[in-house]
This record gives sequence, structure tokens and C-alpha cells, in this order.
Amino acid sequence: MKNVALFGAGRIGRIHAANLAALSGVKLKTISDPMPGAARELAAALGAEVAPSIDAVFADTSIDAVVIASPTTTHSDLITRAAQARKHIFCEKPVDLSVARAQACAQAVAAAGVACMIGFQRRFDPSFNEAKTRLARGDIGTPEMLVITSRDPGAPPVDYIKQSGGIFRDMLIHDFDVFRWILDDDAVWLSATGACLTDPAIAEAGDIDSAAVTIRTRRGRLCQINTSRRAAYGYDQRFEVLGSKGLLACGNQRPTEVVQADAAGTRTDNPEHFFLQRYREAYRLEVTHFFEQLQSGGAFRTTVADGVAAQRLADAAAQSLATGQPVSLT
Amino acid sequence: MKNVALFGAGRIGRIHAANLAALSGVKLKTISDPMPGAARELAAALGAEVAPSIDAVFADTSIDAVVIASPTTTHSDLITRAAQARKHIFCEKPVDLSVARAQACAQAVAAAGVACMIGFQRRFDPSFNEAKTRLARGDIGTPEMLVITSRDPGAPPVDYIKQSGGIFRDMLIHDFDVFRWILDDDAVWLSATGACLTDPAIAEAGDIDSAAVTIRTRRGRLCQINTSRRAAYGYDQRFEVLGSKGLLACGNQRPTEVVQADAAGTRTDNPEHFFLQRYREAYRLEVTHFFEQLQSGGAFRTTVADGVAAQRLADAAAQSLATGQPVSLT
Amino acid sequence: MKNVALFGAGRIGRIHAANLAALSGVKLKTISDPMPGAARELAAALGAEVAPSIDAVFADTSIDAVVIASPTTTHSDLITRAAQARKHIFCEKPVDLSVARAQACAQAVAAAGVACMIGFQRRFDPSFNEAKTRLARGDIGTPEMLVITSRDPGAPPVDYIKQSGGIFRDMLIHDFDVFRWILDDDAVWLSATGACLTDPAIAEAGDIDSAAVTIRTRRGRLCQINTSRRAAYGYDQRFEVLGSKGLLACGNQRPTEVVQADAAGTRTDNPEHFFLQRYREAYRLEVTHFFEQLQSGGAFRTTVADGVAAQRLADAAAQSLATGQPVSLT
Amino acid sequence: MKNVALFGAGRIGRIHAANLAALSGVKLKTISDPMPGAARELAAALGAEVAPSIDAVFADTSIDAVVIASPTTTHSDLITRAAQARKHIFCEKPVDLSVARAQACAQAVAAAGVACMIGFQRRFDPSFNEAKTRLARGDIGTPEMLVITSRDPGAPPVDYIKQSGGIFRDMLIHDFDVFRWILDDDAVWLSATGACLTDPAIAEAGDIDSAAVTIRTRRGRLCQINTSRRAAYGYDQRFEVLGSKGLLACGNQRPTEVVQADAAGTRTDNPEHFFLQRYREAYRLEVTHFFEQLQSGGAFRTTVADGVAAQRLADAAAQSLATGQPVSLT
Repeated sequence: MKNVALFGAGRIGRIHAANLAALSGVKLKTISDPMPGAARELAAALGAEVAPSIDAVFADTSIDAVVIASPTTTHSDLITRAAQARKHIFCEKPVDLSVARAQACAQAVAAAGVACMIGFQRRFDPSFNEAKTRLARGDIGTPEMLVITSRDPGAPPVDYIKQSGGIFRDMLIHDFDVFRWILDDDAVWLSATGACLTDPAIAEAGDIDSAAVTIRTRRGRLCQINTSRRAAYGYDQRFEVLGSKGLLACGNQRPTEVVQADAAGTRTDNPEHFFLQRYREAYRLEVTHFFEQLQSGGAFRTTVADGVAAQRLADAAAQSLATGQPVSLT
Repeated sequence: MKNVALFGAGRIGRIHAANLAALSGVKLKTISDPMPGAARELAAALGAEVAPSIDAVFADTSIDAVVIASPTTTHSDLITRAAQARKHIFCEKPVDLSVARAQACAQAVAAAGVACMIGFQRRFDPSFNEAKTRLARGDIGTPEMLVITSRDPGAPPVDYIKQSGGIFRDMLIHDFDVFRWILDDDAVWLSATGACLTDPAIAEAGDIDSAAVTIRTRRGRLCQINTSRRAAYGYDQRFEVLGSKGLLACGNQRPTEVVQADAAGTRTDNPEHFFLQRYREAYRLEVTHFFEQLQSGGAFRTTVADGVAAQRLADAAAQSLATGQPVSLT
Repeated sequence: MKNVALFGAGRIGRIHAANLAALSGVKLKTISDPMPGAARELAAALGAEVAPSIDAVFADTSIDAVVIASPTTTHSDLITRAAQARKHIFCEKPVDLSVARAQACAQAVAAAGVACMIGFQRRFDPSFNEAKTRLARGDIGTPEMLVITSRDPGAPPVDYIKQSGGIFRDMLIHDFDVFRWILDDDAVWLSATGACLTDPAIAEAGDIDSAAVTIRTRRGRLCQINTSRRAAYGYDQRFEVLGSKGLLACGNQRPTEVVQADAAGTRTDNPEHFFLQRYREAYRLEVTHFFEQLQSGGAFRTTVADGVAAQRLADAAAQSLATGQPVSLT
Repeated sequence: MKNVALFGAGRIGRIHAANLAALSGVKLKTISDPMPGAARELAAALGAEVAPSIDAVFADTSIDAVVIASPTTTHSDLITRAAQARKHIFCEKPVDLSVARAQACAQAVAAAGVACMIGFQRRFDPSFNEAKTRLARGDIGTPEMLVITSRDPGAPPVDYIKQSGGIFRDMLIHDFDVFRWILDDDAVWLSATGACLTDPAIAEAGDIDSAAVTIRTRRGRLCQINTSRRAAYGYDQRFEVLGSKGLLACGNQRPTEVVQADAAGTRTDNPEHFFLQRYREAYRLEVTHFFEQLQSGGAFRTTVADGVAAQRLADAAAQSLATGQPVSLT
């Protein structure tokens, strides 16, 4: 039985908590959140305790692992302290908005010899994962081009955007990780552009809401990513890989398989509303994977190095947008 | 907290057990199965006890409800005994292969004043249920015609078939219930035919493996059901309702949303393999519904009367097949 | 160069005329229609002549073939006269509403030794025909069950219905032919039922608008046909064949491949509006086939015997509906 | 009746010839081709004459219009001469591989006051055109982002590629026109990259076979185009427009609507094989449009100015690829 401490009882913390509670061999022992009510309510529902303090969590030698689902600004500190306390770490993306601090986390983790997995849950989406499996098996030959469509149903509050690190670090970080995972190759050239089209307040906050990124890899493979903060029809999460022998396309999931045909046309459901619905199964599978690999000593599908690498691409995209010039990566 | 006793630790019993274990407000207390190992293993995994005996379950006044997932031949006896012991009942379909015994169960339940819900899980399938909701709301006007396609991926062992009551009572019982639920009307005329096309051993066992049923209702609505014990492409569970203003069609679910296009064509996944996969969510939702309605006092979506009514249609279909003549129902 | 006389300048006659005009090696020479204006207009548009009289057509030895697209009541007479005049015949379905008269036509054609093809255009629909090809090739093993959905967008005027011979002879005649063609087997048992659900005037005219037919074949294969005079979403023409190794399903064609996703859902076009749109290519291909086979001496895909056989099934269905009993065919 | 002279009896010339022959009010009078056999065969099949010489065509005052389907290198000369001879012009894309020469053509056409339409047939594809109509009507609000997927089934011979002007001028010229037409906006920033992934001989010929282009418009709208010379599953021609209120996506057409499900999965047809199949209807509609607008005096959907503008984008893309830097356009 692994004892686990959870940091963060917000939206994503509650998802992880429920998945932890249902895992056999895992005991969700403590929950920490600056809002004591949130921690208390979640702990009560799942038979866990509210941690007396963060220090207490790290001092508690019965805790084997921590799950970090607190705000981004706290990630690097919690990772470092957990590593020092010799606790295994599952941390929500991103490691840190600063590549330097993310790299420092990687070093702290390596120095401590603990496991650290970053929550790029899309790698556990059943459709995305099946595509990866077929690709690795050579079902469509050698990959040549990847096109990622990644759109949120609507923009978050501008206050969130202001501290988000910008669209590339906040939204596309996932897509950069998908790019690295699917093409299994390194970026050598990246060009990004964008615009603010949905709400002028986003521009006033110094950000954009629509972005187009192109990447060329060491082996000459190409990747295009298109993103918007707003898709009126729901959370749109797809990608297509063209290979030398065919195409693999991952579509959206829909809540139901009902088709309605009437005078207005033939209609299916829109995609699942947002990430909590679309990636519900992925969230469950990634936490399961974390504890399975802890148990078996197997490799983790997503590491701190993956977190750092995605962050570097986000930085490059931000730089390309700012300068209007492509960025070379080596 | 409701204490629950489960009868049956087989394939379907394990599904219900896992769903019960995850329900808040419900405690899976005991498990009974003629195979002590099966009961023991399941009980250990879920923190329940093996019931010392069936008598002990009914004598245990702390048990509020029973979930019956044991073989069909035991259903009517367990329902009757549970009713007499004043325990609420969730029973897998069918109530009994004999309409008379099913009706006797209905009377026992009514006399005892306990709740009894029959596990027609398809009514809880998210797609089927959404279709029903739209139909009830009038989204496609007045329903006129229902076409049900219901095919298993492969036939069960002939030994199972021999004691199954025949294809109408074993497989189509679900479709007869869907017919009643979706069209919300009574059959007045039923014609069935069929053939044995997949395995001569099924014919030797006195059964068929392919069936075609047509029903006309009191209001003149039409229903066609087509069934086979074998669909090489998976478990095929669909229906379409034609209404005065349009069509509602419920398709199959697929394991993933991956599309692969290559020289051989453009390919999606086949439907989910079989009922445990396809109706996984439906099984969870029906047990949740049972305890919610117990709690709130609301009406159950499927009652013993529904079980009896579906059984009558299965009997009529068997009679029609045997005589080659349609059957009038009133 | 084959000289052709066309009978009928109505909706379907105009389709055939345009296809004849575009065929190389074929000269549309004369057009006959009781409405002289219709014949004149069509002849002028296509560089043909208005036939002085029907007698003149049959007396004209330069005419090699006739295309009969006049009202159903005239078919048997025109076939018989064309056969006697030693002209090859392409005749729209049905041969005649009376099986006896249709058989007399078959005898007249056989006696004269002329070619006679019946316009069951669905056999030339690219999707249906591709399904037939794959079926014949064994792509899904041995066929076991056929489900045909055949719905018109809306009912014709009641005056048309009154003289149509009833829904089975007017609409389902096509489906009976598809059944014979796809399963390549003989009906031994047929049961039909139906209702009038869309317009009471149809019932007053002695007909129904919604029908459900089930057929069992000599080899035990099953077929279900469901039909309605009204589908609010367009002309719905589909079938599915279950075979021992898989399923072949023929869907509808849509005018465009545009998908629109917005807050109301994800929407494709409805099926093509009606038979002139849906079967546009089929009409072209069947007339091409007729002249190709005339030229090469090859077999025709649809013969008078097919017309007679479909008519017998329509009669059986009408009898089954009237008596409420299945009909045995031998 | 308009008399028409056709230049070019190759693959695309034969398509236009057949469409011209079927147009009412149009007479395909002469056909010119450097291969006399090709011209003769086509003329014979369609009842046209072989033109004695190019000079003779321009000297023939009975010729109202020319259709130019000869090799690209001849376009600008034929356009200029036709304009001088006061003949209306339908010319296959591109106007010329040189923007300067294309502009000179535009001036010649304007000076002569003749009509000149460029054969960007994709604007006449029923799906693409329907998307444009809905977009113009505001069905998805204001357009924000366009993603174009444009892939050939396989690369042409390297000899063709050597003189093609490169992938941007040869293949993407169509996509640049679609971009301008669909977004109805001007490019201000364009970035292109690419690679040679399918055949090293293409790289040796100085070209690439895989390209990724990103465009930002005056109004801040974004466009991404991805292209490959090889798609193992057929000719892949799609685009998606994200608007403020939804999405419009144009999918591929398939030869048939047959779905086959078996143990290997559920399979539809691949897209139509190549442009002659996919754009068959578009080719018919564009030539029809040309003569309708000539007759009515209405505006042409595609002008020489459109040809010049697309050529400028192709030049910009080639420059961006060569320099590795984005190009500003004004």
C-alpha cells in the first residue's frame, strides 16, 4: 500500500483525488489546499485527512508519494521539496513557466533518485494512445507530417490569462508534448504567429487567443498546430499523422452516439464539453500508470525532461511570435 | 447507508459488485455464490463478506436490499424470498422464463410492498436514453416505426443455449423491453420467423440463431427487430425511430475514435466487443438509479411489470415461430 | 447507330431522354406523349422528332429500340406491340400491376426474340452495385440477413395513390427486386403488415403509408423491409447485408460533404432529396448497360422475369396485409 | 450559339472538351494540339474539327471564345493573342509561372475588353462552394482560421516536377486561391517550410514534396496549409474554417457509400482517386459558369487578377522556403 499526499483540492485536484481513491494498493492519506474548506470537503468525501501543513506532509515518513495539483507557481517548489524528502512525485503540467526553474527541478529529482512523472494526460487518451501504438508498430509507415487541432470551448477569465504565461505556455504546452511524443523527433525550426480575435481584453492582457505554429524536425518531418481559445461547438482535440503508407486521425469523443435527422439536417452530438469530460479516462489511466510503474520499476511515459522540453518549445513559440521570425532549436 | 447482499459472483455479478463498491451511501455487505472460491475472491477484493448461507442473508435484518445476479432459474425464488423478508430487490433480467412465475413474483413484491427493479440495462445506455429523452420531448414528432438491430459477436456454448429458453427469451427479451420503452405503446400483433444459419448444433438443440420479428401496436406503429447470434465485426446494438418530423438513430460505441486510411480503405474501430464493454456505463447507471430512487422514493425506470411484459412478447415470438402464424396480443 | 423511340415525356421520360442524347452510338429519334407540348419541348431540346403516332413508331423500320417511360397502365400494351414489331425494349418498372399480364408480356417478348430490360435502376446505383460485387466475391462470406430501409420524402397526391396499385406494387416493388438481386435466393414465406400514419386520406383511398415486410428464403435467409411514404429528412434508401464474415451497409448519398459544427451540434447534409437526384447516376448507367448489352449480346442485368418475380412478391405482400396471415410462396 | 476553340487535347483538355460538347448554346468548333493524333481523335469523338493552325484559330472570326488547356508555358502567349483577337478566354491555371508575365496578361485582357476566366475549379466544387455560401451568409459568424489539407495520391514523374515551377507554383497555387476566396482577405505575412520525404529524386530536382505554409491576413486571420505529393489513401482535399460561431469542414467525396464491417474493422471507401474524379463536377460547373456569365454579362467567379494574386503567394512561399524567413506582403 502506497500512502499518497495530494496538494490542491481544486478542479483538477478533485479529479486526481477520486482516481486515487479508487486505485487498489494506493491510500490517499492527506490533502492540502490553501482553502481549508475545499481540502476538508474533499477529504471527508474520500476518507482522507486534511494535512496539518505542507511541512508536515514532507516530514511524514509514511507518505510514499505526492500528487501535485496546486497552482502552477507552486510546482517547482513542491517538486524540489518532495525530492529532498525522498517522495515520489506526480506533478500536473507544467513543471514551471521558466525553463531554468524546470531544469532545476529535473536536477533535484535526479539527485534524489525519486520518480517524477508529469501529468501530460493526453498521452493516456485512449484514441491518442492507440494512434501512437499503431504508429510505433509501423501501421502507416514512416511519419511525415502531423497536424494538431487544439481548441478550447471558450476563453478563461482575463485574470487567469494574465498569469497563465501566455497561450503557448498555458494551452499549447500540451500540443508541444503531443508533437514530441507522436513524431518522436526533435524540433530544429519553429515558427509561430497568432492574433487576438475573440476578445480585445485578451490583447490588452498582452496575449493572443488564436495561434498557428509550424515545426520542422531534425529528420525533416513537419508539424502544424492550430489553436483557438474559442470553439463554439465544444472542446476540439484532434490530430492527424500522415505517414508513408497512410493516415492516422484521432477524432473527438461525443457524449452519445445519437444521430438525429430532420428537416434541418443530420446531426450528431458535439465533442465532449471540455477537458474534464474529454480526458476523464486519460486522467484515470495516467495516475494508474504512475503507481503501476512505481510498483514495477518500469519507465514512466512522461518525465520531467519531457516537461522541460515542452517548455522550451513554448518559449520558442513565444519568441517567434514576438519577433515575427522563426526560431532555430538545437 | 444501505447494506446490500449480492447473489451471484459470476460475470455479471462482478460488474454489479464493482459498481456497488463505488457507490456512496451503499455498503456491499455479503456475497453469495455456489462456487465458494468465486464469492471469496470477489468479497476479498471489495472488502465484503462471504454470506454464510442464503438463509442467513434473508435472516440478516441489517440487509436493506439484495442484488440478484445469479442464474435465471434462481431469480423467481430469490425475488419471492427477498420480498417476504422485506428487502428491496434489484434483479437481473429476466424475472423468469415462465410468464406465470414472473407474474407470481410481481404479486409477491406487491404484497410485500418492497421495491423491485429489473436490470434492463439498455434503458440506461447513454445513447439509448438520450434518444428516449428526445423522443419524449417531441424532437422528431410522433414515433411511427422502430427498427432494432441486435447482434451478438458470437454464439454462446450450445449447453448454454439448451437451457436459455431460446433466442427470444434469452436475447430478444432486451429488444422487447426496448420496444416497449421507446414506443411507449402495446403490441397487438406479432410475427416472428427465423433460421439456424451459423451452427447446426444450435438447430439440434432446438433453437435458431437468426430471427426477424415484426410488431404492430395498438396505435398502428410498427417495429422490426433483426437478430443474429453472430456478427463477425462485434456486438451490434442499434436502433432507429422514424417519427413524423424526423429520425433518431442510436449507433454503436467504439473503443477509440481513431480513423486509419491506407491503401486498403478508411477504417474506424469496430463496435465495443460485447455487452460488458458496451453497457459498462449502463450497468453503473442502473444500479445508481436503483439506490437513488430507493432514497428519494421516486419511480423505478424498470419494474417487475416490465419484466413480465417483455416475457409475454418473447413467448408470443416463440409461438409465432413454432406455428408460422402471427400472434394477436391484447 | 441505334435509332430509339421514347414513349413518355414526363419526369422519368425526360431523364431517360437526356441520357439517351448523351450516349454515343444511340440516336433518340422520336418522342411520343399524349401531351403534345411536352413531347415537342423535349424533342426540340434534344434534336429529336415528335412521333406522328404510336402506330407510326411501330411501323418505322428504322427504329431499333423503344424506351417506355409512359404511365404504368400502358406498359404491357407497349411491350407487346414493340415485341411484335421486333423492336428491343427498355421499359420502366413495373411491367404491369397484374402478374398475369406481366407474364403475358414475358411470353410475347420471348416469342419475338427481342431483348427486354426492366428499369430497376437501383441495381445500377454505384453503392448498391458495389455491395453486390463484394457479396458475390465473398467479401463477407455467406449472406444471412438483409435489412432494407426505403422511405420517400413525402407522399404523392392521393389521386396518384388511388391508381398506384398500393404501396407494395408502387414503392416496394423496387425493394422486392433488390431483395431478389442481393440475396440471390427465392422467397418461401412472406409476412407483411402496415398502417396509415401520415395522412388519413391515404387510408380512405384504401392504402397504407407505412409497411413492414419479412421474407424467409428457401435457404433460410431472412429479409426485413421497412417503408414509409414520409421521411422528413429526405429520401432514405439504404440496405445492410449481414454475412457469415461481416456486414455490408449501403448508406445514402448527400449533396455535399460539408460538416457544420456550432452550438446546435455537428451537422451533415441530409440525403439527396428524391429519386431523380439519388438515382441520377443509376438512370444513366442502366440505359448505357441496355445499349452495351444490345451491342455485345451480353445478358441484361434485369429481365422481364425479374419484373414478374417482383410483382409476385408485391401481390403476396398485399395479400398478407389483407388477411393478416403470412403467405407461402413456392 | 457560341463557337469555341480548344487548345490542348491532353488529360485536362479532354475533360473540358466533353463538358463543352454537352453544353447547350455552345459549339466546340476546333481543337488544337501539337500531337495531331490526339486532336484528331478527340475531334472525331465530339464532332469538332482539328484546327489547321493556331493562327487560323485566331483569324477565324466565327470563333467567340477559346479554352486554353495546353501546357503552362503556352498560357500567357495564348491569352495575349486571344485578347488581341478579341476572343473571350477560359484558361486553365496558372496564368503563368512568372508574376510579371501574368500581370502582362491581365493588362492585355483589360486593354482588349474581353472576358478572361482562370480555371480554379475548386471554387466550383459543390462542397467547397456550399461552405463559401454558408460563410458568406454568416452561418458560422466571422471567419478566424482556415486549415487546408491538400495531398496528391502520388508524385508525378521527376521530369514533370523539374519544369513545374516547384510545389508552391504547381500544387499550392490552388490552395492559395482557396485561401483568398474563402477568407476574402489579403495576406500580410507568410511563412513556408518543407522537406523532401517521399523520393530523393525530387530533392535532386531542386524541389520538395511536403510543405507547410502559414499565412496571417490584414485582419489578423490565420491560415495553415499542409501538403504532400503522396497520400497512400488517395487524393485528400479538405479544408476547415473556424468562425466565431462554429466550424465548417469540407470532407472528401468517396466513390460509393458502402461501409464494410468485418474482423478487420469498419471500412469506408477512400477518397476519389485524383483530381479528374474528385473535381469532375467542378470542371463541368466552371465551364458552364463561364458561358452563363458571358451570356448574362455577370461577373466571373475567378479572374486573371485572382490568378496573379495566387501566383504572388506562391512566389512568397518559395522565397520563404529558400530563405527560412517569413515574407511580408502588402
